[in-house]
Amino acid sequence: MLLLHLSDVDEAAWAKAFAEKLAPYKVVRRGDDFDPAEIHYIFVWKPQPDAFDGLVNLKAVLSLGAGVDALMKHPGLPDVPVVRFVDQDLSQQMSDYVVAHVTMHHRQFTRFNADQKARLWDQYYPPVAQQTCVGIMGMGVLGQDAVERLLPLGFTLRSWSRTPKQIEGVTGFAGDEQFDAFLSGTDILVNLLPLTPETAGILNYQTFSKLRRDRLPGGPAIVNAARGGHQKEADIVRALGDGTLGAASLDVFEIEPLPETSPLWGIENCYITPHIAGISNEATGVNYFSRILLDHEAGKDLVNVVDRQRGY
Amino acid sequence: MLLLHLSDVDEAAWAKAFAEKLAPYKVVRRGDDFDPAEIHYIFVWKPQPDAFDGLVNLKAVLSLGAGVDALMKHPGLPDVPVVRFVDQDLSQQMSDYVVAHVTMHHRQFTRFNADQKARLWDQYYPPVAQQTCVGIMGMGVLGQDAVERLLPLGFTLRSWSRTPKQIEGVTGFAGDEQFDAFLSGTDILVNLLPLTPETAGILNYQTFSKLRRDRLPGGPAIVNAARGGHQKEADIVRALGDGTLGAASLDVFEIEPLPETSPLWGIENCYITPHIAGISNEATGVNYFSRILLDHEAGKDLVNVVDRQRGY
Repeated sequence: MLLLHLSDVDEAAWAKAFAEKLAPYKVVRRGDDFDPAEIHYIFVWKPQPDAFDGLVNLKAVLSLGAGVDALMKHPGLPDVPVVRFVDQDLSQQMSDYVVAHVTMHHRQFTRFNADQKARLWDQYYPPVAQQTCVGIMGMGVLGQDAVERLLPLGFTLRSWSRTPKQIEGVTGFAGDEQFDAFLSGTDILVNLLPLTPETAGILNYQTFSKLRRDRLPGGPAIVNAARGGHQKEADIVRALGDGTLGAASLDVFEIEPLPETSPLWGIENCYITPHIAGISNEATGVNYFSRILLDHEAGKDLVNVVDRQRGY
Repeated sequence: MLLLHLSDVDEAAWAKAFAEKLAPYKVVRRGDDFDPAEIHYIFVWKPQPDAFDGLVNLKAVLSLGAGVDALMKHPGLPDVPVVRFVDQDLSQQMSDYVVAHVTMHHRQFTRFNADQKARLWDQYYPPVAQQTCVGIMGMGVLGQDAVERLLPLGFTLRSWSRTPKQIEGVTGFAGDEQFDAFLSGTDILVNLLPLTPETAGILNYQTFSKLRRDRLPGGPAIVNAARGGHQKEADIVRALGDGTLGAASLDVFEIEPLPETSPLWGIENCYITPHIAGISNEATGVNYFSRILLDHEAGKDLVNVVDRQRGY
């Protein structure tokens, strides 16, 4: 039996779609009349404190979010496998966002926009993509998808991840000891890391000051499409102001919605979007989790299970 | 013997580089002491009215510009083959520009930028690239390079050209009779056409009003990386103002530099760059034309010769 536990999304629509896909399995919602001991799977999105109470026969937690950092901190999370959402549409959207912002900074949007406001015709020719190095932090599903988009555009790519990754066309760096070397050749830094205690606050002034400074004429740029917890916003304000960073594209924030009083809103070379780089959609989510659940009931192993040690 | 005829670029540097590549052939510049009848090739960039005077033994005109529309109108142009520049670096730069502006409009930059100025957190999720159709006008070297970059990003592509072109992954339209059908499924219109009497002014209000209107929420967008002569700027101002166009990226203009009094400068959803999408560089130009000249002297056919009937 599947219990849906959703907030911030249309629970009724998901329940109906799951019921159709999973029949004859039963799907219940919070507030329905059922015995918690009969629940074998729970499908969650921002679960409330009591979400897991009484689910003594749970086989797995199915998490709608691709990032599971908040879920992992839930004090009531049972000791069963947590399956995270790997969504092709989500990867595509995230890469759409990453490519749009990487190419914008490569083509010196900030400079030309300022020139336009000044009605200034100043012919600066951006170098070809090959001369710009995009450094991607995080080589999971999203990082690898970004690589597949950016490589055909001609960019020079390097990656940084917890453990070494061998990806064709990408110079790989791994671990704390290679972090500075990774940064020193990066012109545009893209963050697609999972949020863990180790990666929290990684987008800070010290990191920014280690990026390559002599290539992009406006200074290095950052693109954060992962989590607000990765960034120190006071440091971003400082770095954009003193030229340590030439530009920043931020889709996520320490507090969301970004408070109206945040200085980030008013910074010319800071490009803000309201956590819309990607969103999982109902149809793909229902298909994805229904297949995993039915396969598991048929005796197959669960896939895309979160490693609790790593936190993602 | 090669005569260099250059304006707006560093003639001395080109002459030196050509002399090194072409030795023992002789390279002369305007103002040098030489017999015009001895000149077999002339290498031109914005030739002056008397540029071709007395060159009675000319074998070919080598044109630094990729677009030869201005050269074709030169009243003194001799009746010899005109070789145009096909530059890998130039194609890359043009595609860099095209991709940056296409992805910007796909990701609704204008909307999010306006929201940022209003400190408004409004979560609109742009659809995946597959749902956006980029229509490319012109399937020459530049158009085909743009296709190779945009396809891996996931965009739906269609093309429009004078004669039918079969390119994998691209729905092809050709000729006047298929122009409206081409436009009716296009969300982002990219112009990479050569400028000819037939294509002059093609970016006009009527064209804009035939683009697909129900897909991109801000309205269809145009990207002109070809020639200012392709666009009716008064029509662009009108279309951006009344919502017929959601956004326009313009790298070229009817008059360049764009006059300070042009209303385009002040339009929020008009993105102006000062004819910098691409520029040919000296090293690639010297290599390219030297090889063609030496091959021709060795008996081989000239390549990339302009068709005077078509005008490109």
